[in-house]
Amino acid sequence: MTSSDDACGRVVLVGGGPGALDLLTIRALRELRAADVIVADRLGPRDELDQLGLDAEIIDVGKTPHHHPVPQVEINKILVREARAGRRVVRLKGGDPYLLGRGGEELLHCRAHGVEVDVVPGVTSALSAPLAGGIPVTHRGVSAGMLVLSGHDDLALDSLAVWPHTIVVLMGMSRLPTLAAGLVGHGKDAATPAGVVYRAWTPQQRVIKGTLATIAAQCAVEEVGNPSVIIIGDVVDVLHDAEIVQVARDADSAQGNASGQRDLDVPA
Amino acid sequence: MTSSDDACGRVVLVGGGPGALDLLTIRALRELRAADVIVADRLGPRDELDQLGLDAEIIDVGKTPHHHPVPQVEINKILVREARAGRRVVRLKGGDPYLLGRGGEELLHCRAHGVEVDVVPGVTSALSAPLAGGIPVTHRGVSAGMLVLSGHDDLALDSLAVWPHTIVVLMGMSRLPTLAAGLVGHGKDAATPAGVVYRAWTPQQRVIKGTLATIAAQCAVEEVGNPSVIIIGDVVDVLHDAEIVQVARDADSAQGNASGQRDLDVPA
Repeated sequence: MTSSDDACGRVVLVGGGPGALDLLTIRALRELRAADVIVADRLGPRDELDQLGLDAEIIDVGKTPHHHPVPQVEINKILVREARAGRRVVRLKGGDPYLLGRGGEELLHCRAHGVEVDVVPGVTSALSAPLAGGIPVTHRGVSAGMLVLSGHDDLALDSLAVWPHTIVVLMGMSRLPTLAAGLVGHGKDAATPAGVVYRAWTPQQRVIKGTLATIAAQCAVEEVGNPSVIIIGDVVDVLHDAEIVQVARDADSAQGNASGQRDLDVPA
Repeated sequence: MTSSDDACGRVVLVGGGPGALDLLTIRALRELRAADVIVADRLGPRDELDQLGLDAEIIDVGKTPHHHPVPQVEINKILVREARAGRRVVRLKGGDPYLLGRGGEELLHCRAHGVEVDVVPGVTSALSAPLAGGIPVTHRGVSAGMLVLSGHDDLALDSLAVWPHTIVVLMGMSRLPTLAAGLVGHGKDAATPAGVVYRAWTPQQRVIKGTLATIAAQCAVEEVGNPSVIIIGDVVDVLHDAEIVQVARDADSAQGNASGQRDLDVPA
């Protein structure tokens, strides 16, 4: 029941983190190296995989908001097809497989077709994008919790407006004006700090900070769209005097970049 | 301003993940290897550090709920003292530094004393403990978001009760009876599924599942306390037919365990 050697192959749902190769977990890296085929999203470290010198075939099922080259039902079929061919399949997802990642659906589909599934958690962009932008999602005396949701789903403005701590929205840029105005309409203070972190952990990273009253217009002017993470709450300003985390900062910590096999301690 | 070579040393706040050594990120592992001193919590991979054969001195500031051997103010002082001695300091925290981890306080204290700080995100137990227990925090058609808070803080029952998606509570076992009864008292259905994952990603891992009406009594009977993660919502049962993720499952994936340097691809 739990063999990884059976004829039916195996699928591992792997959280790929926010995109920087060195924010993969050690377990995720091991799974990638062991894979025969990698079914990869656009988000996560898709573009960096080449640096790993992997043997695996890569099947790109990359998604952009409002643009789904490979529908979920088709992804599910690919996973089962490849596993049934006896191959070791890694389904590489951005962030964590289970936080708005549809990992549970893929797991249930595979298991319904007799394919064994493992799951490897990942670094979610709901935490790591704010962090990269100098924003802690909680901070003693400021915010004692966080709420995460997707801009693709019902925004549940009633419950968001009464939540006293941090709100984080993934995949929400197209609805940012609706979200910000809606929260104010439901009683949230228009002066509540709001921030947007665009392409966290990449050289293109940008951070926009304002308030519920201003953030949508600021992002429009700055032409900041997806992929971004939206943060709403007083935490946005709590480290205002602290510099933004730099992805690459000096020769020493440049080892922290997604810049090749050497940096990943790949022995050979 | 951003040199890591200056006389003032450097502090890196590192998210250590839920405890299994191979759920460290590659960047976290690199920082641990480069450290002169590691200031470590009890949660996170504290007990596994010996397997890495690190050169660093380890200062244990481990905390248990209701038992704080080293107060936060003292931890802050240690970080500044060590950094000012010109040492490269890793502050190793369980989970993610900024999700209920007090990382922001440590950062502000260090920077107020002229010490440079970097932050490395981690795999939070708010996601990885439910995952290990076979519970996806979101699932299409079941839950489109999650809310995370600490049992040490105000439970904000009013806003929790109206939140239609998943609730995750860290460090909340001592208040589980209050939480469960309080949610029902505020209008949440007593039949709402509730789960507790104890010592996720360790051989001692246990999963208790029930409802808001039953979970506190179940955990009392089973003598399940901290460290545990509480999950409330329909997602608790959504993969009920799927087996619980096994930390160690067969010879092949046993490489996935925290079982030594070889498994971490440490070249020498």
